[in-house]
Amino acid sequence: MSTNSYAKKGIMISKILVPTDGSKTAQKAARYGVDHAKQLKASVIVLSVIDQRSFIGQTVSAAQAARHVIEPIEDYLQEAAEGYAGEIKKLCDKNGVQSKTVITKGHPVEEIVKEAKKSRVDLIVMGSHGRSALAAAVLGSVAYGVIHKDTKIPVLVANK
Amino acid sequence: MSTNSYAKKGIMISKILVPTDGSKTAQKAARYGVDHAKQLKASVIVLSVIDQRSFIGQTVSAAQAARHVIEPIEDYLQEAAEGYAGEIKKLCDKNGVQSKTVITKGHPVEEIVKEAKKSRVDLIVMGSHGRSALAAAVLGSVAYGVIHKDTKIPVLVANK
Repeated sequence: MSTNSYAKKGIMISKILVPTDGSKTAQKAARYGVDHAKQLKASVIVLSVIDQRSFIGQTVSAAQAARHVIEPIEDYLQEAAEGYAGEIKKLCDKNGVQSKTVITKGHPVEEIVKEAKKSRVDLIVMGSHGRSALAAAVLGSVAYGVIHKDTKIPVLVANK
Repeated sequence: MSTNSYAKKGIMISKILVPTDGSKTAQKAARYGVDHAKQLKASVIVLSVIDQRSFIGQTVSAAQAARHVIEPIEDYLQEAAEGYAGEIKKLCDKNGVQSKTVITKGHPVEEIVKEAKKSRVDLIVMGSHGRSALAAAVLGSVAYGVIHKDTKIPVLVANK
């Protein structure tokens, strides 16, 4: 098979989704994703999902979930997400890997799959274990969720 | 970070383990693994595990498992494994990917992890679903088995 027919028929990875919840394991997996992208000459989308279940339900009950309570928490989580997603983006810059960060709100599994489809990524790189800053979304369950969801996108589980 | 420090600190994938049980999904995942290896300029180890549980217990009971019954089945499975592992090896040759095939007997999960450690591979590429030639080892459970085992080797789950 020539290089040409490979380019036509073979699978080339040009865009990698790297979700992170800021946990140590997730950040480690994200750094692994950046290394992998560098070797593949692929670009990276760093995704942080603000999991609203993490504070609605745990911190405050539905009845108490008034705007004046929710908003400061949301702001805090948004800032935190920008921080840890930004760290990975900086690492991409250092390594000459093209990247962008996306911060969304919702259910981690759904948001990851949504972003993967929307951005037509070729691969998702995730940790197999993890805990979010607010111990809400265990990244392990997220990883298996993504695998089980009806998606054809390969998932690289970077074990710690 | 310079290219030099990347080479020192970054993760480079140079050897990929591609287990296959010969099922359509496993072979598809294996072909994906070859493409991935080509893009990474990595070498491939094609592993086929002859799962003895698939015929001892299903085809014959322990009491009936006499050598004259077992041996022809083993020979058949060995030949089949050489066939489908050989197919992937040929694909490697075609694509200029360095490769070797390994055929072992035992429990698929254990053998995969054993070979991964022994050969010091940097990545395992597997399908998320699968059925063996004798409908014994569902490659899906193998994939999760490998992930759960105490191994630090990343696993790329190539979804069908």
